[in-house]
Amino acid sequence: MPEHTYKLIEIVGSSTESVDRAIHNAIEKAAKTLEHLDWYEVVEIRGHIKDGRIAHHQVTLKVGFRLE
Amino acid sequence: MPEHTYKLIEIVGSSTESVDRAIHNAIEKAAKTLEHLDWYEVVEIRGHIKDGRIAHHQVTLKVGFRLE
Amino acid sequence: MPEHTYKLIEIVGSSTESVDRAIHNAIEKAAKTLEHLDWYEVVEIRGHIKDGRIAHHQVTLKVGFRLE
Amino acid sequence: MPEHTYKLIEIVGSSTESVDRAIHNAIEKAAKTLEHLDWYEVVEIRGHIKDGRIAHHQVTLKVGFRLE
Amino acid sequence: MPEHTYKLIEIVGSSTESVDRAIHNAIEKAAKTLEHLDWYEVVEIRGHIKDGRIAHHQVTLKVGFRLE
Amino acid sequence: MPEHTYKLIEIVGSSTESVDRAIHNAIEKAAKTLEHLDWYEVVEIRGHIKDGRIAHHQVTLKVGFRLE
Amino acid sequence: MPEHTYKLIEIVGSSTESVDRAIHNAIEKAAKTLEHLDWYEVVEIRGHIKDGRIAHHQVTLKVGFRLE
Amino acid sequence: MPEHTYKLIEIVGSSTESVDRAIHNAIEKAAKTLEHLDWYEVVEIRGHIKDGRIAHHQVTLKVGFRLE
Amino acid sequence: MPEHTYKLIEIVGSSTESVDRAIHNAIEKAAKTLEHLDWYEVVEIRGHIKDGRIAHHQVTLKVGFRLE
Amino acid sequence: MPEHTYKLIEIVGSSTESVDRAIHNAIEKAAKTLEHLDWYEVVEIRGHIKDGRIAHHQVTLKVGFRLE
Amino acid sequence: MPEHTYKLIEIVGSSTESVDRAIHNAIEKAAKTLEHLDWYEVVEIRGHIKDGRIAHHQVTLKVGFRLE
Amino acid sequence: MPEHTYKLIEIVGSSTESVDRAIHNAIEKAAKTLEHLDWYEVVEIRGHIKDGRIAHHQVTLKVGFRLE
Repeated sequence: MPEHTYKLIEIVGSSTESVDRAIHNAIEKAAKTLEHLDWYEVVEIRGHIKDGRIAHHQVTLKVGFRLE
Repeated sequence: MPEHTYKLIEIVGSSTESVDRAIHNAIEKAAKTLEHLDWYEVVEIRGHIKDGRIAHHQVTLKVGFRLE
Repeated sequence: MPEHTYKLIEIVGSSTESVDRAIHNAIEKAAKTLEHLDWYEVVEIRGHIKDGRIAHHQVTLKVGFRLE
Repeated sequence: MPEHTYKLIEIVGSSTESVDRAIHNAIEKAAKTLEHLDWYEVVEIRGHIKDGRIAHHQVTLKVGFRLE
Repeated sequence: MPEHTYKLIEIVGSSTESVDRAIHNAIEKAAKTLEHLDWYEVVEIRGHIKDGRIAHHQVTLKVGFRLE
Repeated sequence: MPEHTYKLIEIVGSSTESVDRAIHNAIEKAAKTLEHLDWYEVVEIRGHIKDGRIAHHQVTLKVGFRLE
Repeated sequence: MPEHTYKLIEIVGSSTESVDRAIHNAIEKAAKTLEHLDWYEVVEIRGHIKDGRIAHHQVTLKVGFRLE
Repeated sequence: MPEHTYKLIEIVGSSTESVDRAIHNAIEKAAKTLEHLDWYEVVEIRGHIKDGRIAHHQVTLKVGFRLE
Repeated sequence: MPEHTYKLIEIVGSSTESVDRAIHNAIEKAAKTLEHLDWYEVVEIRGHIKDGRIAHHQVTLKVGFRLE
Repeated sequence: MPEHTYKLIEIVGSSTESVDRAIHNAIEKAAKTLEHLDWYEVVEIRGHIKDGRIAHHQVTLKVGFRLE
Repeated sequence: MPEHTYKLIEIVGSSTESVDRAIHNAIEKAAKTLEHLDWYEVVEIRGHIKDGRIAHHQVTLKVGFRLE
Repeated sequence: MPEHTYKLIEIVGSSTESVDRAIHNAIEKAAKTLEHLDWYEVVEIRGHIKDGRIAHHQVTLKVGFRLE
């Protein structure tokens, strides 16, 4: 187990609801095409505002997964 | 639409409840005096602690709005 | 009151549930051994993923407390 | 002259044409409402892409001006 | 539209001519294999020098595109 | 008191004398037009040199004040 | 040769032995699936500790390769 | 002497008077409980403002000391 | 296992021999007084030079350990 | 060729015309006194404003050259 | 005057007395061998501690001067 | 001894062999033309890859030396 190699990709998840939900949405999406997802790191939290209210949050993540 | 100019201001929202709530409070306050708010970016998340518990969260945001 | 000295420590709180909960868990733990906790600052938000889902969030905080 | 005070604002200029043009557009806009503009610093260069081509560049600047 | 997911890739475009041209070349190349390109961010501007003159500019970009 | 909102502005104070004096000058100037100033953070310390001596120091500050 | 385009990926190599070995392992792995690898940059050096000793080093690299 | 180990702690010193005084106060306080203090590095300079005047400066330092 | 809390300390290891050796020395020293060491991260690599040769390397690490 | 040593210097080029021109001017100037210039990296883009218009751009570069 | 070129060097000034004095000492020293010094920027403030007291402050500056 | 002035230069050392060797090569080269070298700091670790293997490592260092 000690000499694994991992790859990191950068993705942006969105949610109309909360920052936590945007993180979950990004990982769910990544899990559809990638196996062995291992960890995430938040790179940036931002969002769009419409008519004076948050329209949706956008969270940029790095997601690491093990290469086989 | 392509050659708009935007201004960014930096504000700090507080909430006794959650980080998400502090973001919302900051934007609600900004929306009272500024029009055409377009996006926000989180700059810093911090908070005050009292008697070993979080008294309130403070989230610093940049908020961008379109100039007319 | 003006010439207090503070110390900052760096701790990582975990939660299976949310980012906010991980912040709370870290501060609760710190409060068990330290008095006069005064503020926290988020340094990093990350987490572990297992079977394509977030297993737990990990939030690194700096926590400041007053020295007597 | 030695003890002037300056204020810095952050603005985003756009241009369909070039990065240089986006910088100029931002400063022209700022000059319409502010006097004594003194310097600018580029904070970020980004842009929107549409149908595989740059739709417009967006350059974030800090602009400093002398307070009277 | 609110809950899209985006992926960010990092590419380096070159140009013997100008910084703007290097940005365009990078995006043109990316557009050949990726759909739904949405925005770019400049990460680094550098270049090679030969015989005391700029041989070519190299601009590193992050390019974001929508996942379907 | 817990749910205040603050705004941050960025100003540059100058002094022919010292870095501390430049900080004081910036805050004194800000206090002439803004109420409820609450804290400052140093962003940059620089200065101009003339004939091999410091002509004046320039300190860039962020200054936070409470919105009502 | 002047107007090449490059892509950067981010990978993490591990080694029970040394930091240099972890860099080599990451590049060897990348070379199995990618051609025209051109350069690497170290992003982060970290590692796991077990029973008071380093169990393995983990080095995060950006690796650039030429697109054809 | 070549293979010493050092520890770094982070402390915040305050002073109603000057930035230099806040640095001195932090180190004096640290010296009361720690031996072999060896160097300091300034991490952040900030302060509180009251009634439009600086109430006190707060300087965050890393302080390194030799472990025996 | 999911809701552990960790503490991070910052230490500087030295070695007359190599960067890897300085990392090992720092962790060995930390392991003498702390249990449950879990990971390290390199913060800075530097060293002293004497008579035109490296006298010793100094590597600053953050070391994380589980709190019980 | 593999074990060359390079030196990096930091220079600021100016141009009344464009950011690209300021980069060229800096390198032309450096090439007058230094041989074997090999690459440049942009560190900062800023400029002076006079009467509401850009008076000149100033681009800070690191320039690397091979030592013999 | 608009198309000057500047060079930046990095120097460290020391003082047993104060941070301001260390800045002055660095610039005085630079002025002995360089003409047309134009500005300075503080890069780092640190110092040595001996017997629980500051032995001397060390301030790292970038100093810019006009090339002829 | 307390009020010395130091200068920092930035150099890049190469090695076909290891990161440690590249650091040594850079300092050896600097020691040929400069006296009183005092310390080094690693700024960047990168390298060239050829045919899927590391051709040489390149380590950028700041090297400080005492001015007389």
